Amino acid sequence: MHKKIGRLTLPSEEHFLEQTKEVMEKLGADALRDSDGTKLPDEVKDLDAKIYTTYFVARGDNAFAKAHMDECQHFYLMTEHHTAIGENICIPLMKGYFAEQVKVDDDHDPKRWWEVIDRTTKEVVPVTHWKWDKQKGQVVIEAAEPFHQYTVSFLAYAIWDPTQMYNHITNDWGDKEHEIPFDVRKKEASVHVEKVLEQWLKDNPKTDIVRFTTFFYHFTLVFNDEGKEKFVDWFGYSGSVSVEAMEAFEKEYGYALRPEDIVDEGYYNSTYRIPTKAYLDYIEFQQKFVSRKAKRLVDMVHKAGKEAVMFLGDNWIGTEPYGRYFKDIGLDGVVGSVGDGVTLRIIADIPDVKFREGRFLPYFFPDTFYPGNDPVIEAKRNWTTARRAMVRRPLDRIGYGGYLSLAYQFPEFIDYIARVADEFREIYDKIADETPYSSMKVAVLNCWGELRSWQPYTVAHGKWYHLAYSYMGLMEALSGMDVQVSFINFEDVKRGIDPAIDVIINAGDAYTAFSGGEAFAQEKVVAELRRFVYEGGGFIGVGEPSAFQREGKFFQLSDILGVDKEVGFSQSHNKYHDKQSDSHFVTEEIGGNLDFGRGMPCIYALSEDTKILNYKDHTVNLAVHDYGRGRGAYISGMPYSLENTRMLKRLLHHVSHREDSLKRYYARDCRVEVVGFPERGELLVLNNSGDKVKTEVYGREKTYTADLEPNGIVWLKEE
Amino acid sequence: MHKKIGRLTLPSEEHFLEQTKEVMEKLGADALRDSDGTKLPDEVKDLDAKIYTTYFVARGDNAFAKAHMDECQHFYLMTEHHTAIGENICIPLMKGYFAEQVKVDDDHDPKRWWEVIDRTTKEVVPVTHWKWDKQKGQVVIEAAEPFHQYTVSFLAYAIWDPTQMYNHITNDWGDKEHEIPFDVRKKEASVHVEKVLEQWLKDNPKTDIVRFTTFFYHFTLVFNDEGKEKFVDWFGYSGSVSVEAMEAFEKEYGYALRPEDIVDEGYYNSTYRIPTKAYLDYIEFQQKFVSRKAKRLVDMVHKAGKEAVMFLGDNWIGTEPYGRYFKDIGLDGVVGSVGDGVTLRIIADIPDVKFREGRFLPYFFPDTFYPGNDPVIEAKRNWTTARRAMVRRPLDRIGYGGYLSLAYQFPEFIDYIARVADEFREIYDKIADETPYSSMKVAVLNCWGELRSWQPYTVAHGKWYHLAYSYMGLMEALSGMDVQVSFINFEDVKRGIDPAIDVIINAGDAYTAFSGGEAFAQEKVVAELRRFVYEGGGFIGVGEPSAFQREGKFFQLSDILGVDKEVGFSQSHNKYHDKQSDSHFVTEEIGGNLDFGRGMPCIYALSEDTKILNYKDHTVNLAVHDYGRGRGAYISGMPYSLENTRMLKRLLHHVSHREDSLKRYYARDCRVEVVGFPERGELLVLNNSGDKVKTEVYGREKTYTADLEPNGIVWLKEE
Repeated sequence: MHKKIGRLTLPSEEHFLEQTKEVMEKLGADALRDSDGTKLPDEVKDLDAKIYTTYFVARGDNAFAKAHMDECQHFYLMTEHHTAIGENICIPLMKGYFAEQVKVDDDHDPKRWWEVIDRTTKEVVPVTHWKWDKQKGQVVIEAAEPFHQYTVSFLAYAIWDPTQMYNHITNDWGDKEHEIPFDVRKKEASVHVEKVLEQWLKDNPKTDIVRFTTFFYHFTLVFNDEGKEKFVDWFGYSGSVSVEAMEAFEKEYGYALRPEDIVDEGYYNSTYRIPTKAYLDYIEFQQKFVSRKAKRLVDMVHKAGKEAVMFLGDNWIGTEPYGRYFKDIGLDGVVGSVGDGVTLRIIADIPDVKFREGRFLPYFFPDTFYPGNDPVIEAKRNWTTARRAMVRRPLDRIGYGGYLSLAYQFPEFIDYIARVADEFREIYDKIADETPYSSMKVAVLNCWGELRSWQPYTVAHGKWYHLAYSYMGLMEALSGMDVQVSFINFEDVKRGIDPAIDVIINAGDAYTAFSGGEAFAQEKVVAELRRFVYEGGGFIGVGEPSAFQREGKFFQLSDILGVDKEVGFSQSHNKYHDKQSDSHFVTEEIGGNLDFGRGMPCIYALSEDTKILNYKDHTVNLAVHDYGRGRGAYISGMPYSLENTRMLKRLLHHVSHREDSLKRYYARDCRVEVVGFPERGELLVLNNSGDKVKTEVYGREKTYTADLEPNGIVWLKEE
Repeated sequence: MHKKIGRLTLPSEEHFLEQTKEVMEKLGADALRDSDGTKLPDEVKDLDAKIYTTYFVARGDNAFAKAHMDECQHFYLMTEHHTAIGENICIPLMKGYFAEQVKVDDDHDPKRWWEVIDRTTKEVVPVTHWKWDKQKGQVVIEAAEPFHQYTVSFLAYAIWDPTQMYNHITNDWGDKEHEIPFDVRKKEASVHVEKVLEQWLKDNPKTDIVRFTTFFYHFTLVFNDEGKEKFVDWFGYSGSVSVEAMEAFEKEYGYALRPEDIVDEGYYNSTYRIPTKAYLDYIEFQQKFVSRKAKRLVDMVHKAGKEAVMFLGDNWIGTEPYGRYFKDIGLDGVVGSVGDGVTLRIIADIPDVKFREGRFLPYFFPDTFYPGNDPVIEAKRNWTTARRAMVRRPLDRIGYGGYLSLAYQFPEFIDYIARVADEFREIYDKIADETPYSSMKVAVLNCWGELRSWQPYTVAHGKWYHLAYSYMGLMEALSGMDVQVSFINFEDVKRGIDPAIDVIINAGDAYTAFSGGEAFAQEKVVAELRRFVYEGGGFIGVGEPSAFQREGKFFQLSDILGVDKEVGFSQSHNKYHDKQSDSHFVTEEIGGNLDFGRGMPCIYALSEDTKILNYKDHTVNLAVHDYGRGRGAYISGMPYSLENTRMLKRLLHHVSHREDSLKRYYARDCRVEVVGFPERGELLVLNNSGDKVKTEVYGREKTYTADLEPNGIVWLKEE
């Protein structure tokens, strides 16, 4: 086979020209980039490669920032809950916050822009009942109710860019200047950023692609008074607020936001919260602004004959690549970090750009590239996990970041990623010819729907959370499965479920945005879902699906699921149905290795009509249940594993009455998955494990035997 | 020591006179009773003993019952939730119910007394939209909303007494006639029961004590269509309803109850449900009725020169021994079954009777008394567990039940219970002289308060429940501790917490009556509790104390507890405080044997001010936290064990700042407890374990050494 080149971005740096050429050659790279801490020298920029240059819009320009401290970015922050002992209570605003990151803004009238709330009564304390003691940095409430709890929500200047702050503190950058983020919604900054970009475009003729890192507002990352992370929310809009934004919102939407709409009892509208109308309006409002303003920058880039890509991270707030306004920005591409199948799909599925590029792991940094460590291990895990998603929906490009000079010292690593690059290009080209076979359409139902496609359960990008991992596994399993996945919300359900959908999945903890909470108290939602299943659809619930305590049920769709959760009230009812079925289509060929994660206590079957496939420690972990012409199913939790993935695949076929088509593009061994190209009559067989595997493989109709190297792939021509 | 006699009731039976005398002599029994399935012959009744005779008021008189089927008892029952597919839906009322136990009552106008509810909208379906198809036994809803769920609540005759039904089916009594319960609220039955009792009192001159088993209404016990238990609720009033009761209620309370007030979404007002005003009114209404009517019977007994006791069980509904109307009945005593310390205290603490008698285990039945089995094992476990409660609040009498002839075949058992009887009398007499030392006053706070003293968490009496055992252990530990325990509800808190209380305990799952749910959204409740603790009180939360999702907190008293539960919304907030303190007053001398039962996931400390005493699997199991001059504490769950009991004892001293008085009437070894009689200068040392134990024992001031036999006790005179 002719060796393909391209579709690969590498980092480079100063004093590394020859080696850069050597590695580019070896890997078939066609683009070079700078990284955090590196700059590309001219001689590198002159190589036969597209040059990406990182560009920061709203930080890294302290001369401007310092001259315009009134155009600094803002947070809405909330204090802790303080309990009043007597009738006076003093609430120090900065307690628990990092003075190097945030600074109380009392330049804008506190009485107008702050909010003091009696959390015991939910009432806003009248402004006449409190005062701001600037000297002591505290709000003093007079005539407080003893033993009530109070909070203050206040505006604060953001005086240190969170990413720079993180890197600065982590890498001990000492007295290196703190980059102050400025707000492009403000008058001077708005003009300034365009002026600066214009000049920059002139000054950087050798840059082919401007890599925006990113636009205007950073996801929420707030440090505490010890200079450690206090809270972090990948989706958080808390750092996008300003008096100007609040005023513009009121003008545009016809009503004023309260600080409470942003601080949200201190939860800051975590994606686990069921979003309020005000918050949905606010993030739409910011998307519109970000899209309008970013478009102006992108247009300038285009006018300069360059391409514009954005980095999906850092200051990405308001871009919402799955939102309605993203396409208006006019970006050429998106670049993001790929840690697994889900993070690959987050990037790969983004619509309305010409290319999507994934930055693979490991980053070429000394935490991995040190003597005695084998960086191939992480690279292999990363590639193998992401690959199964790649074969369903490929990225257009891949890349790496960091110090190339560091990776260069690990020739086995360079060899390995050369093979990855080849494998990637091979897969890419095949899929460009023919979209692989998909067995069905699956929709994931939660409060966020399409807007947060592939993004459910994320708190901080790439981090493990106890309450998330048993749901994240579901996403990860789907990311590489031969199904078309869409994300829908309850409004989509109420408008009438798309008849093309075969299976709906609802997965999450009770009362969170992912299970849906009060949505299940809406008759249109439950009736539509029941109709969908009754008429032949499949419905899979994970964790506490459709949970909302109401009218004798905890799971409002327990009639579909065949199970409910005992929360105490029906303990007096005998629960007779706890016999596990010995064998069932769903659990065939998997063995006993199912892992339900943190688990869900007290799930019980409603009747003998529910087939229990796993029962342990007084709880149902896996069950299926016929409902009209359709089927429901319940899974207590689903961390990612090859066995769980196989179980989900079989369950999808079961609930959609597609048992007959299971063994089409399928491997008997659950470590192996198959991608089918029926038109071409070709199969791509993936070994997702580090074991050597020999297994039966099913094509469109015939059966083959595949012999796979650890983590290997094999192409089979159908006879 | 002179051997004491009395305070002991034994069963006897026919053809067993001499052996009865022999056992009575040996055990020092002063009373004899009949049992289920036995009658006392005249020659036994002539022995020198008080004679108890079991008396059933509202069953066992089928001649009357059959002649007055319109005065049969009633249930309000609810069907399952049925999903409408089209616009018509038929709901068969008897589906899942046992035709031998219940029969639909359509003699009273269904349109007036039944309720069809659209559970999807919560609306009552207008009576014009449904009809009762008597032929098919189903309610037919016309113009149903497709894919809504419907239930029918209907009146049903109770045609088989639940206790007799249970025994009948369990013991396979074949065609033995079913006893039909009749309702003394009805005209004929009301007169009849008095007439029958009058005659019975004449016919039973040798009876000294009439043992009512019990009065009028059985706790809820409903069987399914396979003749097996469907639901059981020791506190259930569902079997006390009737058209007459509903009408009388409306007259007395000025508003009409709905069937829904009784069936309660199908939960039938389980004690785990937060009681509604209507339900509290209803049970008060029935208590008043039961008390009035029972008083008439008790008065007749007294007039006949006999004593009246009630059995705490079976038809005990409406008596509520801790309620406001119980004393009006005028009973001489209460008899109940003792399985452990809690069930002992349920009986022992009942106010306003002359004596309280506990029936100990094992019951002399063939399930325990069979060749090869050693009934002493159960007896010893039962006595040792109950004894630690007995020494705090003694019963006035103990007793046994069943076939004496069966127990007689186990002479070692007879010897053992002879020792139990002696030990009981010895303890009783000492406590009659002087109330033992108590270290503090502890109040258990829930929605039920005093009315259900010692009864929280019970579903079916004496049965283990997954959601109950981690709280039941708390009750059990308290039952034998040297603290005065009271039970308070949220109204008591709102009226102002009794200043004599040292520690308040709130224990239960979220949104149940035991934790309190929305009570914690009431400012008066939280403010009073905060004030109580701030001013020096102790507060211990178990499980999900003060849980109610509101204003940024899940545990509304997290400020006192020092912990909250992560339910998803604040995952973005870093949780740094997970270090377990290596040593602390609370966990000293216990070792690593604490058992937190089913556990509670995702409990985290709010700050470093919270001292974590046990942290495991990402959750805080035990923590303490200073709050003003008082202290809060958290326990994730507390099954009963000697170690947990000791931990609770130490925790109570810690949160009430009584560390200094811990070692007063205290033993170093946690298998041992000490009862102090400071006036007399005497200690009673209990070995609660089956091990031989030698331990240091602390008196009022001095330290002793006690050498204890397995399960043994030792009296020590203070020097």
